[in-house]
Amino acid sequence: MKIVFIGAGRLATHLAKSLYEASHIIVQVYSRTLESASLLAGLVNSNPINKLTEIYPDADIYIFSVNDSVLEDLLNQIPENNGIWLHTAGSLPLGIFEGHNKRYGVIYPLQTFSKDRNVDFEKIPLFIEANNDPDIQLLTNLGKGISQDVYTLSSEKRQYIHLTGVFACNFVNQMYAISDTILKEEGIPFQVLLPLIDETAAKVHDLSPKEAQTGPAIRYDTNIINKHLTLIKDEKLKNIYRLISEYIHESNK
Amino acid sequence: MKIVFIGAGRLATHLAKSLYEASHIIVQVYSRTLESASLLAGLVNSNPINKLTEIYPDADIYIFSVNDSVLEDLLNQIPENNGIWLHTAGSLPLGIFEGHNKRYGVIYPLQTFSKDRNVDFEKIPLFIEANNDPDIQLLTNLGKGISQDVYTLSSEKRQYIHLTGVFACNFVNQMYAISDTILKEEGIPFQVLLPLIDETAAKVHDLSPKEAQTGPAIRYDTNIINKHLTLIKDEKLKNIYRLISEYIHESNK
Repeated sequence: MKIVFIGAGRLATHLAKSLYEASHIIVQVYSRTLESASLLAGLVNSNPINKLTEIYPDADIYIFSVNDSVLEDLLNQIPENNGIWLHTAGSLPLGIFEGHNKRYGVIYPLQTFSKDRNVDFEKIPLFIEANNDPDIQLLTNLGKGISQDVYTLSSEKRQYIHLTGVFACNFVNQMYAISDTILKEEGIPFQVLLPLIDETAAKVHDLSPKEAQTGPAIRYDTNIINKHLTLIKDEKLKNIYRLISEYIHESNK
Repeated sequence: MKIVFIGAGRLATHLAKSLYEASHIIVQVYSRTLESASLLAGLVNSNPINKLTEIYPDADIYIFSVNDSVLEDLLNQIPENNGIWLHTAGSLPLGIFEGHNKRYGVIYPLQTFSKDRNVDFEKIPLFIEANNDPDIQLLTNLGKGISQDVYTLSSEKRQYIHLTGVFACNFVNQMYAISDTILKEEGIPFQVLLPLIDETAAKVHDLSPKEAQTGPAIRYDTNIINKHLTLIKDEKLKNIYRLISEYIHESNK
């Protein structure tokens, strides 16, 4: 299939590379700057553009992978065509395309993408939605070419997936960041935590998170909880420690 | 070395097995119930006891792996001897042994232990402390027989390690548990999050947690943050979402 990418960020880069490796043709990469468009275009043998008027009108698929806030603005500037217009966002509804094109849908990969880090796209769950059944089928087939886990999911449900992604990735990473800051102040390398971090993630492959819980909060060991609160200087962080400890305790009563 | 275990919980079980496999002799396992003592004793070819008066007086090492709250009580009931008395707790100071025995120390494995889950003890960081230099050396050698990562660390520093363990393990696991609950309500299997969970943990092997951060909070995308807050019904959980999001935003300004 002929695919146009609108946006050249981290998600677009990983998705475009994966589609290119699955023998699709990335006909164009649009980005606000030609530099950024060229960076991705160079990886997938594509043509970089930075003018919306130059967008190729006869592609099969247009993938909009841009910040949620700029998507609507872009949609107003691109003329309707016969391709399927897709976005890649967890929390934007399918209906955002209404009135902009006949065929549209969503392809939402549930993963965190960083520059300079390869991820195994095969293992990334893809959540598909479209405004008509044949396109759901088409997008499912497209998805199965790059991932083993392709699901059809409504916009309503997808936003909950995105919400849990924030808890299980961004907030988890912030717990790592907090630990990193505390250890740095004590002159201890963050690396000592890696076996614990790995085991904590590995455990929930076999046990439910509820079964996997350990530590002072689930034992409601107020001695240790109070001692930890005295070690934390930052008031906001104290509050976070207190709230999550209480939440663990109450969820396990 | 001849080692007596006082306590037969998860940590004691993993540590005893690992010491046993490294050819040490686990002479006794004490637990309040003979059933629990026998369970561990059976795994390490040891003798189960449930009376403190029966404790073997001529062991080299006594490992107290019990709840912090019962340790002091136990120490009062066991007569002084020539062995090294150790506890395994992150937040208890070395000084808790003062007045109870001549030689004492700490061996703190930084890991989360579950029943029926094997962990690779070789990769677990061990933090060692003792009240005299020769015993620090002795315990370091003992530790190196079961782990590649053995550190000498003061009680003062160890409590910060324990604190970060709570953030990087218990609180992380609670983020998983929250996600599990939300997904269950939507009829979506928790398993869809596993690739994201794994990548989030894997990333911080190569990037600092600060560099690894993604998502709506670091972009300070208030549209999505507010949308997520409307999806969360529980007031406490709303509060946790809000606080961590703000903390991410502020730590990255």
